[in-house]
Amino acid sequence: MKNEKVIITDVTGRDGFQMEDEWIETEDKVAILNKIIDAGIKRIEATSFVSPKAVPQLKDAREVIKHINREQVDLVVLIPNIKGAEFALEAGVDEVNVVVSVSETHNQKNVRKSVNESIDGIGEIYRLLDKLNIKVNVGLATTFGCPFEGIYDVSRVSVVIDKLKEQGLNRFMLSDTTGVANPTQITSFINDLTGKFSDSHFSLHLHNTRGMGLANLLAGYQAGICNFDAALGGIGGCPFAPGATGNVCLEDVVHMFYQMGVDIDPNVSKLIDASKHLEKVLGYKLPGQVMNAGLSTDTVSA
Amino acid sequence: MKNEKVIITDVTGRDGFQMEDEWIETEDKVAILNKIIDAGIKRIEATSFVSPKAVPQLKDAREVIKHINREQVDLVVLIPNIKGAEFALEAGVDEVNVVVSVSETHNQKNVRKSVNESIDGIGEIYRLLDKLNIKVNVGLATTFGCPFEGIYDVSRVSVVIDKLKEQGLNRFMLSDTTGVANPTQITSFINDLTGKFSDSHFSLHLHNTRGMGLANLLAGYQAGICNFDAALGGIGGCPFAPGATGNVCLEDVVHMFYQMGVDIDPNVSKLIDASKHLEKVLGYKLPGQVMNAGLSTDTVSA
Repeated sequence: MKNEKVIITDVTGRDGFQMEDEWIETEDKVAILNKIIDAGIKRIEATSFVSPKAVPQLKDAREVIKHINREQVDLVVLIPNIKGAEFALEAGVDEVNVVVSVSETHNQKNVRKSVNESIDGIGEIYRLLDKLNIKVNVGLATTFGCPFEGIYDVSRVSVVIDKLKEQGLNRFMLSDTTGVANPTQITSFINDLTGKFSDSHFSLHLHNTRGMGLANLLAGYQAGICNFDAALGGIGGCPFAPGATGNVCLEDVVHMFYQMGVDIDPNVSKLIDASKHLEKVLGYKLPGQVMNAGLSTDTVSA
Repeated sequence: MKNEKVIITDVTGRDGFQMEDEWIETEDKVAILNKIIDAGIKRIEATSFVSPKAVPQLKDAREVIKHINREQVDLVVLIPNIKGAEFALEAGVDEVNVVVSVSETHNQKNVRKSVNESIDGIGEIYRLLDKLNIKVNVGLATTFGCPFEGIYDVSRVSVVIDKLKEQGLNRFMLSDTTGVANPTQITSFINDLTGKFSDSHFSLHLHNTRGMGLANLLAGYQAGICNFDAALGGIGGCPFAPGATGNVCLEDVVHMFYQMGVDIDPNVSKLIDASKHLEKVLGYKLPGQVMNAGLSTDTVSA
């Protein structure tokens, strides 16, 4: 499978912010997302139209969308159900993300529905939005395993994709929700799935929970994936591993591709500035590395 | 190049401890290294016979060596010169590590010698120790670039290896001293060097300074390397990047190989225990990930 141009989707505004207990002011959210956009990120999952009760941090979703520099990015919003789809329509987003877990137990814990019930809901969303040319991407949470059911065979993922394809869906984000994947597994799962579903679009959503984030991303890239999610400073995380870090770090990912000589748009130095700003706003040390160390190609005088 | 069994050398006692400003009690050092050995690590760079003035933290080198469980490991000690070689002989170590930088500027900064002067000194050490069956491994510091001279071509490394081979040396640790390497460069350098010097032994010493530690390790493994250095909890570091993390984390490295299905001896859970102990001794949060998150294969009841 040949790599197309590498596109990184920034998920700071959704998977990043949703894990923050302390309220982040709407203007701070907007400023950070606009810095990310200004750095050359072309696709952004900016927020989520979830219930403010479920995720109070994202209750300002409409305000955030209104004030970010929309014209420079593909705007994606996470939606949980058909109500969210109607909000997304009103807001005029470019794409929506929906989620279903591969793990039955994780799906029950996450949304109190069976996997099949979630798939039916996703089908309903797809039928509403597809005819209006709004892309619907399915996040396959716990693709590589989950804390309740452990690591499972790729056939578990295929079964879920098969059902989603029956509903018309064709864009899938393989999500390592709790950061359990390893490079060998990534290679094997991607080869299997891109072989079996060669007409589908796949991206990778990776967490650095066990330090393997960039190694897994490398394995994914080697297997032909060219779309990856990442969050500024490596924020986000997983409620099941409180001491662990979150999403793969946006500026570290861009920096690695840049140093590897891969053609990639965003400017690392601008992303570092954005990450330092985010660190000030959040008030704690972020797990990002390049923001502390600088670029590999930076030099000092002897 | 086919991988042999993967062997991880623990460098906590040398590259880890030497970066610690606060004095670590000798009995704490010994306890930590013995926990690492007890976890199944088979090769350990336990300390360094450097001047106590230069590195006060390692002034107890002889005491440390005396009290670790020698019979279960290959004991390696870093030595800076022929005097250190004599100390190593007295102490009856199995192997010594010596260092020369590929970067002329870095070598001057590090040991106030030219690269050629360092190589001559290494030749002298080799002539003393080789006939006594003590292996001499050469750490090629700044193999992949340095903060003063930037990233350079692999031919710079070949020139240094050629000169060392003229002196009889044949075991080389490709060291990413300041964590500037990227996976593409690792692949290309290793293919070039193992092709050109096919009768030499190569290992990888990687830092996680810019988050690419395990991605680089994966690239190295894919290129056929099976010997890697790592430090418990990811301690160590680089004086040129104060906010950045250090060596690739021992338990995270072992965990990744274990999850990848690679045959590897050390026990991850025992290493996590050792790392938590180290964290208590040092009194600050270590950058290791698996020590916080647990194993990928750990499960909780729903």
